[in-house]
Amino acid sequence: MIIVMKPEATNQDIDRIVGILKELNLSAHLSKGETTTIIGLIGDKSRLAGHNLEIMPGVDKLVPITESYKLANKKFHPAHSEVKVGDLTVGGGNFVIMSGPCAVESGEQLMAAAEAVKAGGAQVLRGGAYKPRTSPYSFQGLEEEGLRYMANAREKYGLKIVCEVTSESAVKSAVRYVDILQIGARNMQNYELLKVVGRTKLPVLLKRGLAATIDEWLNAAEYILSEGNPHVILCERGIRTFETATRHTLDISAIPVIKAKSHLPVIADPSHGTGVRAYVTPMAKAAAAAGADGLMIEVHPTPETAMSDGPQSLSPEEFLRLMEELRPLLRLMGKHI
Amino acid sequence: MIIVMKPEATNQDIDRIVGILKELNLSAHLSKGETTTIIGLIGDKSRLAGHNLEIMPGVDKLVPITESYKLANKKFHPAHSEVKVGDLTVGGGNFVIMSGPCAVESGEQLMAAAEAVKAGGAQVLRGGAYKPRTSPYSFQGLEEEGLRYMANAREKYGLKIVCEVTSESAVKSAVRYVDILQIGARNMQNYELLKVVGRTKLPVLLKRGLAATIDEWLNAAEYILSEGNPHVILCERGIRTFETATRHTLDISAIPVIKAKSHLPVIADPSHGTGVRAYVTPMAKAAAAAGADGLMIEVHPTPETAMSDGPQSLSPEEFLRLMEELRPLLRLMGKHI
Amino acid sequence: MIIVMKPEATNQDIDRIVGILKELNLSAHLSKGETTTIIGLIGDKSRLAGHNLEIMPGVDKLVPITESYKLANKKFHPAHSEVKVGDLTVGGGNFVIMSGPCAVESGEQLMAAAEAVKAGGAQVLRGGAYKPRTSPYSFQGLEEEGLRYMANAREKYGLKIVCEVTSESAVKSAVRYVDILQIGARNMQNYELLKVVGRTKLPVLLKRGLAATIDEWLNAAEYILSEGNPHVILCERGIRTFETATRHTLDISAIPVIKAKSHLPVIADPSHGTGVRAYVTPMAKAAAAAGADGLMIEVHPTPETAMSDGPQSLSPEEFLRLMEELRPLLRLMGKHI
Amino acid sequence: MIIVMKPEATNQDIDRIVGILKELNLSAHLSKGETTTIIGLIGDKSRLAGHNLEIMPGVDKLVPITESYKLANKKFHPAHSEVKVGDLTVGGGNFVIMSGPCAVESGEQLMAAAEAVKAGGAQVLRGGAYKPRTSPYSFQGLEEEGLRYMANAREKYGLKIVCEVTSESAVKSAVRYVDILQIGARNMQNYELLKVVGRTKLPVLLKRGLAATIDEWLNAAEYILSEGNPHVILCERGIRTFETATRHTLDISAIPVIKAKSHLPVIADPSHGTGVRAYVTPMAKAAAAAGADGLMIEVHPTPETAMSDGPQSLSPEEFLRLMEELRPLLRLMGKHI
Repeated sequence: MIIVMKPEATNQDIDRIVGILKELNLSAHLSKGETTTIIGLIGDKSRLAGHNLEIMPGVDKLVPITESYKLANKKFHPAHSEVKVGDLTVGGGNFVIMSGPCAVESGEQLMAAAEAVKAGGAQVLRGGAYKPRTSPYSFQGLEEEGLRYMANAREKYGLKIVCEVTSESAVKSAVRYVDILQIGARNMQNYELLKVVGRTKLPVLLKRGLAATIDEWLNAAEYILSEGNPHVILCERGIRTFETATRHTLDISAIPVIKAKSHLPVIADPSHGTGVRAYVTPMAKAAAAAGADGLMIEVHPTPETAMSDGPQSLSPEEFLRLMEELRPLLRLMGKHI
Repeated sequence: MIIVMKPEATNQDIDRIVGILKELNLSAHLSKGETTTIIGLIGDKSRLAGHNLEIMPGVDKLVPITESYKLANKKFHPAHSEVKVGDLTVGGGNFVIMSGPCAVESGEQLMAAAEAVKAGGAQVLRGGAYKPRTSPYSFQGLEEEGLRYMANAREKYGLKIVCEVTSESAVKSAVRYVDILQIGARNMQNYELLKVVGRTKLPVLLKRGLAATIDEWLNAAEYILSEGNPHVILCERGIRTFETATRHTLDISAIPVIKAKSHLPVIADPSHGTGVRAYVTPMAKAAAAAGADGLMIEVHPTPETAMSDGPQSLSPEEFLRLMEELRPLLRLMGKHI
Repeated sequence: MIIVMKPEATNQDIDRIVGILKELNLSAHLSKGETTTIIGLIGDKSRLAGHNLEIMPGVDKLVPITESYKLANKKFHPAHSEVKVGDLTVGGGNFVIMSGPCAVESGEQLMAAAEAVKAGGAQVLRGGAYKPRTSPYSFQGLEEEGLRYMANAREKYGLKIVCEVTSESAVKSAVRYVDILQIGARNMQNYELLKVVGRTKLPVLLKRGLAATIDEWLNAAEYILSEGNPHVILCERGIRTFETATRHTLDISAIPVIKAKSHLPVIADPSHGTGVRAYVTPMAKAAAAAGADGLMIEVHPTPETAMSDGPQSLSPEEFLRLMEELRPLLRLMGKHI
Repeated sequence: MIIVMKPEATNQDIDRIVGILKELNLSAHLSKGETTTIIGLIGDKSRLAGHNLEIMPGVDKLVPITESYKLANKKFHPAHSEVKVGDLTVGGGNFVIMSGPCAVESGEQLMAAAEAVKAGGAQVLRGGAYKPRTSPYSFQGLEEEGLRYMANAREKYGLKIVCEVTSESAVKSAVRYVDILQIGARNMQNYELLKVVGRTKLPVLLKRGLAATIDEWLNAAEYILSEGNPHVILCERGIRTFETATRHTLDISAIPVIKAKSHLPVIADPSHGTGVRAYVTPMAKAAAAAGADGLMIEVHPTPETAMSDGPQSLSPEEFLRLMEELRPLLRLMGKHI
């Protein structure tokens, strides 16, 4: 941490800060420039809790030097992590495809979707049983009934299953059925929920919030990791920008940034990221080319009658074509499905 | 709802759409332009659930005409609502000041804050017992102990109290203590939590999400209203933009927009909105001048040692000065505290 | 400037940096923490031009400590500046109203507008002769003919006049007619144009770019100031955010931020900032309450037939009402028109 | 265009609108819903200039149906365009690499860069002679001297050359030297400059503005096209968002969106888009995989001493490696260099 003093700061102002740091057993390095004095603070920053130096007399601003997340930080864990989902590995050369409908609508719909995604080569079936929807008048999900359909589809097709959880009680139900718990974008900063999934030992797919910086996203991961659950997979799914031609702006550059700052695997969701079926395939390829460890793709047996997110869902045929076009690109990237 | 067809749409494409609408008992008005045909859809749009017309052949895009929120919509409830908090009225000429520390830290700290905000003229004491913090290593709140301190301060100073709730179990505790339940920005789209507070009949202060459009914010209010709880107060607290000189960008224009689109009262929080103590007073005045129904202001007995948000908290003296400067402005605006 | 080294940086990496700094006659202060070494750099940073330390081996990042703008910086010019426009002073307790139509459409239209704004108490007439429009098929302005109509209106009503300039040749024409040259939001980073208006000695109204940080805005002002023209008035006119209920988001907090970081006067333009007539008056009041030195308000004799920006233009009656409501608020703020 | 009336609009309000449309020889289609009447307007919308229907009594809002750009619109020019730069074709299966230093610094530096980019397979040499820089104290470019060095390098290495122009006088010099005129992001809405380059018949590389929607970008292209210059190449180079881990957010999804909405070729600039050397290669691949027609990549013989943008410039070795990794990906995409 660097403390930058104002040009008009007095020696007394500087001494007051240095005194506080000493009291807290933190060392202070002073550098006096022509107009500005800066104080470098060395030691355990957490001792500063309850001391708001930035509002002390003479202080211009504090400049943090190190990230507040530790367990998710590549600086302290240089090797890339792999997350095991039963016999499936996410990361480390394995490319994972999580596909299926936005919402579980019925047993038949889900089985048809599961058949289609299995045929395309997906390893994980996605399907929402608890649906966070912008309007209270939209379909809200089948809840536990939906989880049962998911479990049936896993049985029949040998797929892993991932479901979003939106409350502590949803987690309680979901842990009895699913292989991966998903935290959706709207709940990325629902810290109580993060702690709850951190206390399960199930793999967690943590989507980036619409307005979350990468730093905040890794701090959200830190909530899960610091509860003792190291099995976190990150998922970029679009951020909110001024552009309206796409539903969100899929931040493909988040993939190399995560690879530089964290050891956790990261996948991308071009379906939610663009909101438009025609853009899903090019953006899926872009994510793979940028180094993603996998993709989440919405597939619906009949997109035109989907209860949720139909316009961004691929039909089974479109999904097969995407997978065919993706395979040689993955080989080129040294990844295998 | 308007359905805009592509220039190359065939008569068959158009007939297919019209056929679906007829089947659903919706009327269709066709307008054929030189290059584009549009179909106006009249009737209950909710019948379209499970029909994704935008991906039917020949369709360019759907253009919604009416808002999806109804109970929060001024079009259907032209008179401004007032929210009763015991003998205190929010809205309708009454200007409400909700003040106090970001986090409840101890009984002494809270009592000192309560005394200060009472002296300044605040009617409501704020104080966080459940703290959503970006880093898991930051102070997370005193939970129920904090609620008890809040209740004690209410008793002693005759203030109403407002506390943020971050989970269903926090709501269960909070309803036994508080006058107003607060939904924070990070939970604005935590729909499960919105339903839970909607089922209590307590007044709810609903903060705008960092990346939430006003339309999404009013849809979040609709979740609470549609559960049968009409006592919703909105709170603008800054949106995320590219600007870094302030912590967020307090969207003052949201105040007149809410007044035009909804009947619900709306207050502003310049403390979180700016994140900088020096900007709180000018922005508090700006919000009042723009027509806000109240303010939320962070006040701490000793900001320099606050456990949370010290840099944006006013000292008791600064709060008194703000209130003094605010009073003549409120009189000018026809508002009374 | 602070140079933050990576945890794995070697002594050799550190020595290499220190060596470069010494060669450039810059002093280096080392602070070695548990995981990270930081190097404080003292002296004239401009000597670093052509040395990109952030990509040297072992360097994590550079952290700038001081702003790159100097002449616009309050740190070096603590007193607030006033800008003289003939016998009119902007700043220092004088509140300036610049009003008139978005575009000059005809001599009659402009005279009617000038009469209306004079009646309301404006000191400056605005009117666009060179119009930057999103579509090439929209009205592009009357150019020099428009400037002549502006000069006539000044003559008749004793108003100062301000016109936007969009190219070097427009500046050449405009300097013969106008009292204030306006740089529009779209040209805030058209540095060639900034240098050209910097070489005139006319007052310049510099609007903030749609995506410009306050730091970039002050650097744009620095372009004008560093050419020897100190007469710069800043104008906040809305930034681009994800919100679509308003055309832009008028960043009211930019006003106190500018007051903290710069000595230049700053006004606000709620007409462009909101794009909606009904929001102009509340936002004009908000800007005044936040400490602005003036307002730019679009007024058109008949908004419903305006060639440009009609929907956000006030009618003469609306403008009179705004001015009536504004006067007591300005008195409260210690400002006079 | 659709005119949406307010719920409380009277028959008289509706008749007034219909009357105006009839006077202007535009047909009106009325659709009366339960709460809302909408009026579909058919015919040449430009006749509405000077009639601001959205502020007429009873009108809620206007909803545009067709885009304002025509010549750039794929709806009216369904086949993808190719742009000829001498014997080089941009678009239509040809993948173009434009590489070189951010700024031309000297004859030696540029020749070394030209040799490196030629060796890697680039067809076009980039190099800035007129540099728009945030601070007036940064290096501003060698101007015409820089253009001459560019022309020398073209001669020696058989490369085409592209240079940014920032003013009308820069265009006058540049047309005598360069093969492609570049409009930078900061000047995308400098409409006077767009008209000037539109009147040359040289190919124009039009970068997207930092805060420009895709619709505004295509309208900027329309300025050039409507002056009679059809040789426009678009370049996505990052938009401004709240994320600070990258300098900008390279909007890869703009590539498929442009392919859907326009016939113009589009390339991407991952150097400016990310601002970080380590992210250039993954983002270059992502752009290619998403269907871009080319790339602009900054290459400097010695990035650590570059006068401008060193931290995002590749060294010659890094560029060679990028090109090697890119070639098999381009083959997969059916593109050839």
